[in-house]
Amino acid sequence: MKLKAVVLLSGGIDSTTTLAIAKKQAFEIFAISFRYGQRHIVELESARRIAAFWHVKKHLVLDVNLAAFGGSALTANFKIPQDRDIKTISQDIPITYVPGRNIIFLSLALAWAEVLGANDIFIGANGIDFSGYPDCRPEFIAAFENVANLGTKAGIEGKKISIRAPLLKLTKAQIIQTGFELGVDYSLTLSCYDPSSDGKACGKCDSCIIRKKGFQEAGIPDPTIYGQASV
Amino acid sequence: MKLKAVVLLSGGIDSTTTLAIAKKQAFEIFAISFRYGQRHIVELESARRIAAFWHVKKHLVLDVNLAAFGGSALTANFKIPQDRDIKTISQDIPITYVPGRNIIFLSLALAWAEVLGANDIFIGANGIDFSGYPDCRPEFIAAFENVANLGTKAGIEGKKISIRAPLLKLTKAQIIQTGFELGVDYSLTLSCYDPSSDGKACGKCDSCIIRKKGFQEAGIPDPTIYGQASV
Repeated sequence: MKLKAVVLLSGGIDSTTTLAIAKKQAFEIFAISFRYGQRHIVELESARRIAAFWHVKKHLVLDVNLAAFGGSALTANFKIPQDRDIKTISQDIPITYVPGRNIIFLSLALAWAEVLGANDIFIGANGIDFSGYPDCRPEFIAAFENVANLGTKAGIEGKKISIRAPLLKLTKAQIIQTGFELGVDYSLTLSCYDPSSDGKACGKCDSCIIRKKGFQEAGIPDPTIYGQASV
Repeated sequence: MKLKAVVLLSGGIDSTTTLAIAKKQAFEIFAISFRYGQRHIVELESARRIAAFWHVKKHLVLDVNLAAFGGSALTANFKIPQDRDIKTISQDIPITYVPGRNIIFLSLALAWAEVLGANDIFIGANGIDFSGYPDCRPEFIAAFENVANLGTKAGIEGKKISIRAPLLKLTKAQIIQTGFELGVDYSLTLSCYDPSSDGKACGKCDSCIIRKKGFQEAGIPDPTIYGQASV
């Protein structure tokens, strides 16, 4: 019988590549996505298509309204920064940071994993070419794994819960190369923070800029349809 | 200006006493409760009355449907254990354990705290006279505090986030005595896992049994109206 894994799936490059890696490792995949009040809610359509493409065992879309707290350009009516250069993007924690997001998402994935009897939770966090988010760093992942093992019945009973972040030390280009070799169809993914309602990427937000740079450096054509700008 | 604190408020004895302690420490209180698919949803009425009684600055009730995962007698259609003796209750992790619950609730409280600029999060977890839940132990609280400081912008920028669990080493009787001295009206609280729709406690579940014993040992009359059994 296959081992089960819960995979956090946003519908972007990182989580989709992570799903492909988990699949390659022969896990039975339980994908979880969140309707959290994000302005780029259309990303969930990408997540659904990707879950279907990879024949996941189950894809759960859970509601958790982080917009109730506010405090982020991704959930409130703040202006999304545009056309920033890559150095600026990687220097600070931007206003697209959603307080507590990965902690919340990992906690919910953990709860599902415990019910499923899965010991492995995959997250596409990466510490290089990231957008300066504190909850994408290796020390955060390790600390959360510790919480998972101390705060659950599964952990206490000696089942080691692992938080797997296989992209943690890869550049965006390396992530894309990895996924490409695993058969990821990146035309199904959406990275944009501010897409049109039919899912066209803006080409100008931090996430689009990091994405474009990744494809360029990987030497792989970017299949993204940008609504306003082109590669 | 008063310092802000986020307080997890379920409407039971522990969280209400914790709220009173935070209030005594002169924090401005932001209380958060969860509609998580619990069968004892009527506890939220208690939480509302308690939040009003203590004049909290804001009381947020957030939806997060843990019943989507199943796996617990509190969120699924399992039978709630009745009339267990106190030794049995404290020995194992019962089927009323909700996988990941306190991790999820603390994560959401943390997100709100970060947006509010609050450094203190209060939780009524206690490790004595508890129901054997792993996410109520001191080592779990410490591990989560570490996550909070590593995984948030606030933590990274040097604001120390504290997870305060002032009841951690108190017996239920000591908790009740503490609250009594602080002016807690325990008639507003609800502990029962299986109450009637108008909020009458069953008197037979683990939580009712622990509550009764607490009042007896504290030498304080139990104001609870039990629907089926009496003290």
